[in-house]
Amino acid sequence: MLLLPSRLFALLFQVYLLLLVPLFLESVSLSPHRIPRLSPHKHALILKDSDKISSASATSEDFKTYFYTQTLDHFNYAPQSYATFQQRYVVSSRFWGGANSNSPIFAYLGAEGPLDQDLDIIGFIRHTARFFKHLAVFIEHRFYGKSVPFGSMEEAMRNKTLRGYFNSAQAIADYAEVLLHVKEKFSAHNSPIIVIGGSYGGMLASWFRLKYPHIALGALASSAPILYFDNITPQNGYYSIVTNDFKEVSHNCYQTIKKSWSEIDKIASKANGLSILSQKFKTCSHLKHSFELKDYLESIYSYAAQYNLQPIDSVRMLCRGIDGAPRGTDILGRIFAGVVSSIGNLSCYDTNAYNYPDETNTGWPWQVCSEMVIPTGRGENDTMFPAAPFNLHKFIKYCKSLYGVSPRPHWATTYYGGHDIKLVLHRFGSNIIFSNGLKDPYSSGGVLEDISNSIRAVTTLNGSHCLDILYPEKTDPKWLIEQRNTEMKIIEEWINQYYADLHALNK
Amino acid sequence: MLLLPSRLFALLFQVYLLLLVPLFLESVSLSPHRIPRLSPHKHALILKDSDKISSASATSEDFKTYFYTQTLDHFNYAPQSYATFQQRYVVSSRFWGGANSNSPIFAYLGAEGPLDQDLDIIGFIRHTARFFKHLAVFIEHRFYGKSVPFGSMEEAMRNKTLRGYFNSAQAIADYAEVLLHVKEKFSAHNSPIIVIGGSYGGMLASWFRLKYPHIALGALASSAPILYFDNITPQNGYYSIVTNDFKEVSHNCYQTIKKSWSEIDKIASKANGLSILSQKFKTCSHLKHSFELKDYLESIYSYAAQYNLQPIDSVRMLCRGIDGAPRGTDILGRIFAGVVSSIGNLSCYDTNAYNYPDETNTGWPWQVCSEMVIPTGRGENDTMFPAAPFNLHKFIKYCKSLYGVSPRPHWATTYYGGHDIKLVLHRFGSNIIFSNGLKDPYSSGGVLEDISNSIRAVTTLNGSHCLDILYPEKTDPKWLIEQRNTEMKIIEEWINQYYADLHALNK
Repeated sequence: MLLLPSRLFALLFQVYLLLLVPLFLESVSLSPHRIPRLSPHKHALILKDSDKISSASATSEDFKTYFYTQTLDHFNYAPQSYATFQQRYVVSSRFWGGANSNSPIFAYLGAEGPLDQDLDIIGFIRHTARFFKHLAVFIEHRFYGKSVPFGSMEEAMRNKTLRGYFNSAQAIADYAEVLLHVKEKFSAHNSPIIVIGGSYGGMLASWFRLKYPHIALGALASSAPILYFDNITPQNGYYSIVTNDFKEVSHNCYQTIKKSWSEIDKIASKANGLSILSQKFKTCSHLKHSFELKDYLESIYSYAAQYNLQPIDSVRMLCRGIDGAPRGTDILGRIFAGVVSSIGNLSCYDTNAYNYPDETNTGWPWQVCSEMVIPTGRGENDTMFPAAPFNLHKFIKYCKSLYGVSPRPHWATTYYGGHDIKLVLHRFGSNIIFSNGLKDPYSSGGVLEDISNSIRAVTTLNGSHCLDILYPEKTDPKWLIEQRNTEMKIIEEWINQYYADLHALNK
Repeated sequence: MLLLPSRLFALLFQVYLLLLVPLFLESVSLSPHRIPRLSPHKHALILKDSDKISSASATSEDFKTYFYTQTLDHFNYAPQSYATFQQRYVVSSRFWGGANSNSPIFAYLGAEGPLDQDLDIIGFIRHTARFFKHLAVFIEHRFYGKSVPFGSMEEAMRNKTLRGYFNSAQAIADYAEVLLHVKEKFSAHNSPIIVIGGSYGGMLASWFRLKYPHIALGALASSAPILYFDNITPQNGYYSIVTNDFKEVSHNCYQTIKKSWSEIDKIASKANGLSILSQKFKTCSHLKHSFELKDYLESIYSYAAQYNLQPIDSVRMLCRGIDGAPRGTDILGRIFAGVVSSIGNLSCYDTNAYNYPDETNTGWPWQVCSEMVIPTGRGENDTMFPAAPFNLHKFIKYCKSLYGVSPRPHWATTYYGGHDIKLVLHRFGSNIIFSNGLKDPYSSGGVLEDISNSIRAVTTLNGSHCLDILYPEKTDPKWLIEQRNTEMKIIEEWINQYYADLHALNK
């Protein structure tokens, strides 16, 4: 049972919410990012045993692990900035054509979690290795896994000064150094590098191509919501797509969900309401607040949409439960039937299943509260969820209370751009694929149209989050196979063009 | 009497050499960057009164000064990184066509000195204002002038932690913030921004376009030796051009200079040698080491080449002194005649004239000793100067002894690129002009060939350092007028293309 590699929007604040509930009841509306632990291979049960997750490091035999002595602060020359840490990267040269033939390097840019899980599930790189004869490199993101400066991640995160270095600009500068080092190590001076990432890692991949074109020839940015900053994307983009995914499958299912929230509130307001709800939903522990249940349900719906693997179709499965409940079943009974249909028939349902602390749940809230400010919310009646508008002012206050510093909500667009992207990049830059499945709620913040001949959008009507970069499965639908093939063809064109340019210049 | 705006390679180490001579005799070879205080308007006497320099802030009346509250550290989220400082920028809206017509913004990106002097001499922006109807913005580089975080520059530079923030990546991030702020302030959302800089500032301008294409539509990078890093350019590039400049004017002059160094050594080795040299060169104070004289002469030759204003031709003037000395004059007599012809007939000659501490001489050595590692040297007999090879190992040791931290000699190419620039940028990026006068010693590190249709090299056979961005003069030669016109035409094309794109996208 593996983690999704790049669960972009991991359980923001939830770890803290458990502690801070009395103070931050309001802030429930600030934590719309509940991404469950789901294997990308099948619609799996939610793990209750969080230990299992960290053991998912089945690195393939032909991968070799290295550590690079990385600079803590690339943008400062004070003595303390010269501190270094060991950054993990993993290389497979099994299919590499070698430096003499300038065979390419495909580099996976790690995202908001330990690298181990990614090695097992980012299949695109392995899948294409025979074809491209590339050197496969996976690099871990700073502050995750074995690439934490000074001690454990928890320790690092408690240190206000140290965690200041935990951000995307430093992370992609790390990647620049590691990739130059790899080129040196393998004498691969003229090998073109293609960077690949998914979700947050996809953002990093596209930004890397834009900021370091002298290092990466091209980028495959899978499900990268680079426009979900600074109000470029409407804040309800995410939940609107979740809603549409359900509506398309079954209007009745959608309606039932939409009505259910007030039903929950109604029962919760009764004297023994929380007991009734606990019983009705077979919760493993007694509900203390109705929002525990509502958050749990919201997560289930969101992840069903986001990680809607084909041909299983988790949204359809969930709605089958809701719609197929025996005639006369009340609204909450139907909702519970949906949960059972989606998650399976369990002895009890752990409403904290999405909230257990792990590295992603420790690191990502910090990243969100510093620079990756992705305004996600929804208004009254614009989705099937209860209203929970994103309020920047409250968000800032909340982050400040957690970390002592304010987020910089405009920094992502200042440093990476995003506004007027077509106008800006139509005649600047090249060799980026933005791939999105339009059923993925995060595609709302993605680049869905070609920007130029070589900054391309590859979208699929039915796809969800990051499907294209996972391991191909025999059961993959035709459109997913075609999507991967399209991406391979585009990358092949970049590489051939590069070889032609190299040849022409060396003549 | 004004400073050159962007004296890229200001008196590296010389301030320190005065104190460190016994320890660092060897390090003379590390200090090839002696750029004199010369007005770009005429071949002027070297100022002995350094007070005069800081008073050169004759801001034109239509320029208005503002201060932006700037973030000290853009790439860190530790509490101390949130410190701010006041950054100066200056705006003239006199010729601006206004926000309604999306009239452009021309932004001068400050370099390694206070902004005041630049306002007076970077004439390109003022000169083109009527034509482009642009808003003119001049932004001061952090740690210079009135944009020093916390107190005086000297204080800031004594603080090891604070000076860590003094680097180019932070500086261009500053420019990004200021320019977005200016757009906001003037409601100029759709006004295209052209960034302009000279020398180090020219490097910043080209890097800014590459890193922040969403903020600057294009860049004019005048005399920007962006390839003088990491051994892309041969280390003797600078002195080879100085040598050629002299050789072209007069082979005899070149030969005389080439022979003079051993003559100086020969006399210096005599018991009263330094007295003889002091008398012969009418030095204001008695020479303590022969290299004081040699450095002084080296500076005079280098600057004559670098700031060789037309039609004055300071190299020709200097050689006229050398070649025109009365028959029978010995070598050093001819050299002195060259000095007199070049600098003027003074009661005495101050060999420290190029070394007086000012902000540039305080800041730039730090920048060079941290990230702007420009390997400049020369071998045996490959120039008209004595051998002084650049030795990275010694350089690092030297910087470490001065500042306690090592330079990062590969960082500039890691962050900004430079290697294989044609291969990298031929299909990436757009709208940069690299302008160079081929008589400018720093053109050896410049981009001298078109990289693509829109990354252009505009070179002139006869030009020296940054002439194109200075105020036009009536005496300007035809090729300089043409160079400016070419640049204006290219920029006009960028802007027109931008308006067409904007129009097409808004349709």
